[in-house]
Amino acid sequence: MSGAAIEIVYRVRASAAAIGRRAEALLLEQTVELPRSALRWEFVRSSIVGRVAGTARLAEGLYRVTIEQPEVTAGPDPAQLLNVIFGNSSLQPDVELEDVRLTDGLARMLGGPRFGIAGLRKAAGVHGRALTATALKPMGLSAAQMGEMCRAFALGGIDLIKDDHGLADHPFCPFGERVRACLAATEDAARSTGRRALYAPNLIGTPSAVLRQAEEARHLGAKAVVLSPMVLGLPFVAELASGLGMAVLAHPAFVGGQGIAPEVLLGTLFPLYGADAVIYPNAGGRFRYSRETCAAIAHALRNPRHPVAPAMPVPAGGIKPERVNEVLEAHGADTMLLMGGGLIEPAEETLVARCRQFAESVQDFPYAR
Amino acid sequence: MSGAAIEIVYRVRASAAAIGRRAEALLLEQTVELPRSALRWEFVRSSIVGRVAGTARLAEGLYRVTIEQPEVTAGPDPAQLLNVIFGNSSLQPDVELEDVRLTDGLARMLGGPRFGIAGLRKAAGVHGRALTATALKPMGLSAAQMGEMCRAFALGGIDLIKDDHGLADHPFCPFGERVRACLAATEDAARSTGRRALYAPNLIGTPSAVLRQAEEARHLGAKAVVLSPMVLGLPFVAELASGLGMAVLAHPAFVGGQGIAPEVLLGTLFPLYGADAVIYPNAGGRFRYSRETCAAIAHALRNPRHPVAPAMPVPAGGIKPERVNEVLEAHGADTMLLMGGGLIEPAEETLVARCRQFAESVQDFPYAR
Repeated sequence: MSGAAIEIVYRVRASAAAIGRRAEALLLEQTVELPRSALRWEFVRSSIVGRVAGTARLAEGLYRVTIEQPEVTAGPDPAQLLNVIFGNSSLQPDVELEDVRLTDGLARMLGGPRFGIAGLRKAAGVHGRALTATALKPMGLSAAQMGEMCRAFALGGIDLIKDDHGLADHPFCPFGERVRACLAATEDAARSTGRRALYAPNLIGTPSAVLRQAEEARHLGAKAVVLSPMVLGLPFVAELASGLGMAVLAHPAFVGGQGIAPEVLLGTLFPLYGADAVIYPNAGGRFRYSRETCAAIAHALRNPRHPVAPAMPVPAGGIKPERVNEVLEAHGADTMLLMGGGLIEPAEETLVARCRQFAESVQDFPYAR
Repeated sequence: MSGAAIEIVYRVRASAAAIGRRAEALLLEQTVELPRSALRWEFVRSSIVGRVAGTARLAEGLYRVTIEQPEVTAGPDPAQLLNVIFGNSSLQPDVELEDVRLTDGLARMLGGPRFGIAGLRKAAGVHGRALTATALKPMGLSAAQMGEMCRAFALGGIDLIKDDHGLADHPFCPFGERVRACLAATEDAARSTGRRALYAPNLIGTPSAVLRQAEEARHLGAKAVVLSPMVLGLPFVAELASGLGMAVLAHPAFVGGQGIAPEVLLGTLFPLYGADAVIYPNAGGRFRYSRETCAAIAHALRNPRHPVAPAMPVPAGGIKPERVNEVLEAHGADTMLLMGGGLIEPAEETLVARCRQFAESVQDFPYAR
């Protein structure tokens, strides 16, 4: 093998007797899909076939296999790169993707976060503390009702107000009407608060629909959007992020088990493919990522090992007002706390007050100074 | 709840004491993402919130939960539909998607297979027997070499010759050159055999790249293409299939564990989103689907419960010449057998002969008459 290589680390279940053969098969599965004995072409053997760079025993019957694949196998193409990393092997239950390190060239092709932590802070006008975020829901409210809720959130001092990821271009709440109403609400609230909240509409649909929504959102003045990479397709997100001009909050809908470690998919791949901030289910909520997994996702987002900007961790899902300090202690200041249901649950009339309490608890947190 | 409903069936792990609450939470998670007590809007309660239509105990701590979601929650939008079916719940390891039944309206929005079994048979000119297929590989051959291999496959009588799903627009084998060489090879071989093999190039990349490739393939005369829906994104596949004019072979790369039963993802959703034929890892090869799972995928493809055309099952992965009869016995005539490595492994000079043997073994199979 010659030239730059993609390094991919798998966890593989195999016996001590079989692991050598299993690692070789895994290496070949991602690119040539033929046994080595069938590779009678010199160029294929020298330039396409990678190598098993290491095999380490983790436990009885469990190995860490590190594979290097030549950069050229991935295209350069954001879609084909997924095949090289975890295409066919995603169908093999004895294999899990544990880590991936792209070449600098491929990382630059993908582009990474265009705003990142710094750009998001600048857009929100927030420095030296964690950011607050919330979600407009439930599905079923009209655009005017969403605008009203957005106004309450903004008056309460929330930094970023996002559409729930299930808000589409529904007939009862058309995309353009909702974006207009919510942007107007943040502008209106800013006259009282002196600071304008970011509103991030959810872009969802087929590529042509999403491109239309992006154009409309930008035209109306949105500075950030929500995308669900596993619903839309990571390659589309990469293409979209490249000319978007708005910050990308990635949502983990449809992520599934996948056989990919969450810190790799959400912490490494999502930002490489263009996410400026990544929403993930926080430990202790109604989803099941452990504290360690959440810490690993946040660490990977903030400390990219590729030449791309750091991205903002956004723990979410079941965060309640009484848990804010705990989440801040675990996550630190370079975090955006997303509290959705925890704010909306109570009676409507207390919404602004509850947002204010949330905003103040984050502003006052000692770590954040 | 009023109006047409999407029926979604989950397997849920919960205690007998908790299952009622768990089913209610699952219902709300996919759409409103708020507890019922917070839903103070009449329209949301009456038109957005679906219902738990049934809960059946399967075993100790394991339940089948059937949920009906109003059609309107899904958009109509091929992307938002995925959120309603398995968006947030894909992140919950106590839940698996077991079945889904769309409304006729949503199935028509997606469109289903535009060619289906009948259209593929017509395009291939094959009736009354199973079809044969093979894959051009390994990655690393030049366009001219791919053309030579394609010619050998076509001379050997293979019905459909597809690009391996990892063949992208690589610098060493540019897309347009490869498509030209392979289509010319099938045309050339047809002068000897009297019947032209179908060649299906692999479309892969960001949406704009894939759209360019589709345009070029169509312009050059391709009648079928390969797409990997989980790499490209299902909504993009739905959009692409709608005006493509070429049959879609769907490849399962990047499918992962997902928490979705394979017969639902590959057998129901892939064809609804436009796949005319679906490649899946056959039991007994180097992937791990059971015989029962393969049979369930094939059954779902051939017998759609939605108003869409039947799609062609394409068992693949480790099928060897000596296993052809076994695979045909298990699958019957409305099947496309994909043998890749099993044909290529031996020496180059025997390739045509081995293809001929494969083609004849399928033609001669009694079931197929």
